[in-house]
Amino acid sequence: MPDKVLIYSRFPKAQLVRFSERYELLNAAGKRPNEAYSAAELADVRAMIAAGGAPLGGEAMDMLPKLGAIVCYGTGYDGVDLAATAKRGIAVGHSPGANAASVADIAVTLMLAAVRRLLVVDNYVRSGDWAGRMPSPMMRPQAGMRGRRVGVYGMGEIGRKIAARVAAFETEVGYFSRTKYDLPYQYLPSLEALADWCSVLMVAVRAGPETNQMVDADILRRIGGDGFVVNISRGSVVDETALVQALTDQTIAGAGLDVFAEEPHAPDALTALPNVVLSPHLGGHTLDSHVAMQDCVLANLDAFFAGKPLPYQVKGA
Amino acid sequence: MPDKVLIYSRFPKAQLVRFSERYELLNAAGKRPNEAYSAAELADVRAMIAAGGAPLGGEAMDMLPKLGAIVCYGTGYDGVDLAATAKRGIAVGHSPGANAASVADIAVTLMLAAVRRLLVVDNYVRSGDWAGRMPSPMMRPQAGMRGRRVGVYGMGEIGRKIAARVAAFETEVGYFSRTKYDLPYQYLPSLEALADWCSVLMVAVRAGPETNQMVDADILRRIGGDGFVVNISRGSVVDETALVQALTDQTIAGAGLDVFAEEPHAPDALTALPNVVLSPHLGGHTLDSHVAMQDCVLANLDAFFAGKPLPYQVKGA
Repeated sequence: MPDKVLIYSRFPKAQLVRFSERYELLNAAGKRPNEAYSAAELADVRAMIAAGGAPLGGEAMDMLPKLGAIVCYGTGYDGVDLAATAKRGIAVGHSPGANAASVADIAVTLMLAAVRRLLVVDNYVRSGDWAGRMPSPMMRPQAGMRGRRVGVYGMGEIGRKIAARVAAFETEVGYFSRTKYDLPYQYLPSLEALADWCSVLMVAVRAGPETNQMVDADILRRIGGDGFVVNISRGSVVDETALVQALTDQTIAGAGLDVFAEEPHAPDALTALPNVVLSPHLGGHTLDSHVAMQDCVLANLDAFFAGKPLPYQVKGA
Repeated sequence: MPDKVLIYSRFPKAQLVRFSERYELLNAAGKRPNEAYSAAELADVRAMIAAGGAPLGGEAMDMLPKLGAIVCYGTGYDGVDLAATAKRGIAVGHSPGANAASVADIAVTLMLAAVRRLLVVDNYVRSGDWAGRMPSPMMRPQAGMRGRRVGVYGMGEIGRKIAARVAAFETEVGYFSRTKYDLPYQYLPSLEALADWCSVLMVAVRAGPETNQMVDADILRRIGGDGFVVNISRGSVVDETALVQALTDQTIAGAGLDVFAEEPHAPDALTALPNVVLSPHLGGHTLDSHVAMQDCVLANLDAFFAGKPLPYQVKGA
């Protein structure tokens, strides 16, 4: 009999195929486990797969009395109450770095599209306005990338990959993270200092209580009127109301966002703006990322059921 | 008395300010010189500034009997009839490399936006469809950049800058150009071989008779169904009809285009497609590019009027 694994969050079926080949899946698909399954069915489930951003507290854990491992699909685990898992002796795994290249790619895609006003100029061509007789203000030259100071907030695997990509655009790269690393980028001692220094802020820091709402009205003001914010981390890191305000009154020039405060929604005040580029949290959502994330999930599950430590265990969990 | 310079093409006034500070400008603004000015006014004009892509043949040159220098604003000079200038002893200058960083940036912007379907996903967020109950086919994972083979056609200053940027995205970079250089990228011996090898073709070759319509139906078929074409060179290098067909029947997956066969128009068949990203020939159109291009124009003019060779002379012209 294959071991049972609860699917806690809602995943597209295609993403579960490889897990179902090795495990018996109980797919709660985003419902509370005890609404999707009876207590008897949940009684002997020892592991679950969750989307790391979905809230997962002690109450849900207690619906599975034998739960020993929560394996997050993806790098994030900010939804998991780590105090609750620690108290219960539940191991927490994730997929570190598996989607870092894809997320860094979307960060740079959003940055370039915002700086070069891609949505606006594409529409200018498609509408036929380009062929109009009068030169349009649209065609006024804008500041490009060369010589810009790009600040990366957070220097984990994604932050490093963002920095490596951005540096290729003849920019200066700086960063702020809790730790100063031996990296060829300028270290700024605080987020405030980074925001003062840069004209593009790439938010790549891990979400959590320490980073909640850190990019606020003050930080946006420091980035300034020729500045851009790109967020591929979590919506919670940015004060979304302050961001909408800063974009509306042009405290900053634009933004590129893959993540939002309340997904899968982007507020109307944001979607109405011409100076933003939006994507539906698909940064890590490429074929090769999914294969790599599934590799991590399977490695974590296989180790757990073999009685071994998780190879991709969340630090401190 | 300042020397007289004819402005042959239509330029935004802001781009002429620095020239007008040093020269007396006769601004034909895209009209034929003898329609804009009398023969007497043109009789002693010795230099002109032109957009390199605009047709400029012997007939127009002969309207200025003392013409000694054609200075192109930008890197391109494909509109200038070099046989006609050679016959008349007219020097031809341009602005090599001045806009290379900006053009390479737009190439990568278009590549990433096409591969990650940025316009479609932005619309998916803005329309509110993301919040719909059913997972959308929109959210099916796609192939990303990592591990892709990106082929660069043309290895001049722009091609090199494209290659350096693209390599940062964990891709393999190959190229074809007439000359094999000492560069850390794979050299393919023909455009056909490059198209067979790559799944993204970046067209960065100089426009001219040798490269006219080189990217045709056969090349597109070789790039294949998961492949993309990005053109930031000139519309003439790509068979636009074949490209529209290949995009429509999904012989290739998508395209990013900054240049078109008949600017400032993009054909309706192209603007109706969802799998293209379009920009209105603004690759080199950033503030710092314009400063650098104007520096080259002024250096060429100043040298010419001082009786010296042009510092940025077109090779072979």
